[in-house]
Amino acid sequence: MQFDFSTTQRIIFGWGALDKLPSIISKFGTRAFLIYSKSVPAVTKIENIFNELQIKWHAFTAYGEPTDKVINQVTAEARDYNCDFVVSIGGGSVIDTGKAVSALLTNEGDLLDYLEVVGKGMPIKNLPKPYIAIPATAGTGSEVTRNAVIKITNKKVKVSMRNPWLLPSVALVDPQLTVSVPPKITASTGMDAFTQVIEPYVSRFSNQLVDLYCKEGIEKAAKSLLKAYEYGDNQEARTNMAWVSLLGGLSLANAKLGAVHGFAGPIGGMFKAPHGTICASLLPSVIEVNVRALREREPQNQKVARFEEIAKIITQDSHAKIRDGIEWIKKLKDKLHIPQLLEFNIHKRDFSEIISKSKRSSSMKGNPITLTDGELWEILEMAL
Amino acid sequence: MQFDFSTTQRIIFGWGALDKLPSIISKFGTRAFLIYSKSVPAVTKIENIFNELQIKWHAFTAYGEPTDKVINQVTAEARDYNCDFVVSIGGGSVIDTGKAVSALLTNEGDLLDYLEVVGKGMPIKNLPKPYIAIPATAGTGSEVTRNAVIKITNKKVKVSMRNPWLLPSVALVDPQLTVSVPPKITASTGMDAFTQVIEPYVSRFSNQLVDLYCKEGIEKAAKSLLKAYEYGDNQEARTNMAWVSLLGGLSLANAKLGAVHGFAGPIGGMFKAPHGTICASLLPSVIEVNVRALREREPQNQKVARFEEIAKIITQDSHAKIRDGIEWIKKLKDKLHIPQLLEFNIHKRDFSEIISKSKRSSSMKGNPITLTDGELWEILEMAL
Repeated sequence: MQFDFSTTQRIIFGWGALDKLPSIISKFGTRAFLIYSKSVPAVTKIENIFNELQIKWHAFTAYGEPTDKVINQVTAEARDYNCDFVVSIGGGSVIDTGKAVSALLTNEGDLLDYLEVVGKGMPIKNLPKPYIAIPATAGTGSEVTRNAVIKITNKKVKVSMRNPWLLPSVALVDPQLTVSVPPKITASTGMDAFTQVIEPYVSRFSNQLVDLYCKEGIEKAAKSLLKAYEYGDNQEARTNMAWVSLLGGLSLANAKLGAVHGFAGPIGGMFKAPHGTICASLLPSVIEVNVRALREREPQNQKVARFEEIAKIITQDSHAKIRDGIEWIKKLKDKLHIPQLLEFNIHKRDFSEIISKSKRSSSMKGNPITLTDGELWEILEMAL
Repeated sequence: MQFDFSTTQRIIFGWGALDKLPSIISKFGTRAFLIYSKSVPAVTKIENIFNELQIKWHAFTAYGEPTDKVINQVTAEARDYNCDFVVSIGGGSVIDTGKAVSALLTNEGDLLDYLEVVGKGMPIKNLPKPYIAIPATAGTGSEVTRNAVIKITNKKVKVSMRNPWLLPSVALVDPQLTVSVPPKITASTGMDAFTQVIEPYVSRFSNQLVDLYCKEGIEKAAKSLLKAYEYGDNQEARTNMAWVSLLGGLSLANAKLGAVHGFAGPIGGMFKAPHGTICASLLPSVIEVNVRALREREPQNQKVARFEEIAKIITQDSHAKIRDGIEWIKKLKDKLHIPQLLEFNIHKRDFSEIISKSKRSSSMKGNPITLTDGELWEILEMAL
């Protein structure tokens, strides 16, 4: 039993938890910088809270995934405004934007100075400005992870700014905010969350603390994802999925992920497919090929037993085999009407590039076994 | 499902984890203040690490529980030394001393200015100096809690300095350090840890995140406490008990405790009985009286089912009743040769004072039901 676990110092969770924002921010200062998705109705509520507390604020509306250009632009605005703290509300992209901006407010220079691979990879020297992350989707768990994924426009690649200090000061998770999320987004973000409690459980870096989160998350996702999709205002289902998303963030940040996310990063950089849709398409074939590879090359590896345990949990059948689990996931994907990858113009001719990029990704390092190029190709072929 | 969860931002756990100290402290500076228990052999290893890294250091040897006088004395030494960070190694008392000192290094004035009840209760204004807490017993979980318990010498009372900022910067938990703990201390600290995963599970403030920790901790404590006592060098048992202690700290800091700890604070302030011994003596009768009170006055309260669940987990018998669980705990206490409270000169004539003090304690607020004075008396009587 060994682990090195980091997380957001304070996590506030619950239906209606947004009401606790005033007591949280009152100690952080009088000038706020707000980053939000246009699609989130609750932003008005936050602005009202600022007004009531006589907090001055400047807002930035975020669209889509953050690019290096966007981050530099928001940072310039936030620096000009000289804010005391940052608040963001939205999906994983908006949460990640807030991480990068709060860090760049106290660390001078350009985003690229601090980026892995494409930049100078300089360490962050100063503690970021206080940052309150308010997720409005149940998917990425990014409110409790220590990296911000940023798309580098001129390189068609996604890279991470990564540092324990990027963990938000407070994660405020209010499942009620996800009621307005449309079914299609509920399905794809939900499959991301589901994958993020499965992959760390079978990861090379799994540990006993993360195991607790994963087992709980797998059970709750299996129970509630379809219900949240079909009945968007069901409080229990929405609460469970926000909980799964949070557990996924806690897990992936401390035990990494696997081949599903190893692939999903590069594919998302190359094609306009939603992240969760990519995950949903890859998950069954990744499990199948991983299990086969483990049985062939590492028959003593205890992760095979974990795949079987997952099958039993999700099917609620104590006699279920791994095959039954894979079929269960495929059926769930169909019921959620998640489109095939082919619909996003991903073709066999792209496989070589995808494979070569995915092998360098941080997530791939968590996969329970090192897969051959042939196995990686097979996964993509099965997932199309 | 509602919770507000805070913890130490980084937790490093594992057999031999002390070897990771160099990489942890290298970023914190070049002048260390070390607080340690004389009884911990590994302190030499830490001093060697400081020397190798050319870190200058000043050490303070702690004895027994911290008093206000001791804290002020250590703080004066640490302020004079102008250290960059604090490291402590020892039991809960030493860890707590480190919390208070690291906070007083960046917040001027006297300890009393910041204490609840007996002092001015001023809030801490500045972030404490970086603080690495290294527990050398498996009991309090104090490396992940946000309060420091301090004995006020001239008032025969224990009070808390309490603030989320008191959470250590890093909790470094190396179960190997507990191998040198003698059986008697293993027994009493272990019963404290065991109680600290039971009480938050039935607490009024229990929540779904803490539930995960408690269930895991209860199972592991039941499996390993006696083995750690009988075979002090058993790696699995020692690892499990350090894990239980950590889970207990995470749990109590976020869901409070109950009547066992509500009593244990005042009794520990009035008599020279080890904290874990007091907990062990009270636990069976607290469960018995709590369950009876719940059945009588709040038959719908779902905490009764949890007491039954605990009985099933610890006895490993799916048909066990609460009564079986209580008997199991009593037998464990006997096998651990934990003395009766009577041996510490606690008598019926002291009950009124104990009860009156315990009703004001923070832990008592977590008890699943408000107990009458008669019930509190009964618990003490049964526990003597």
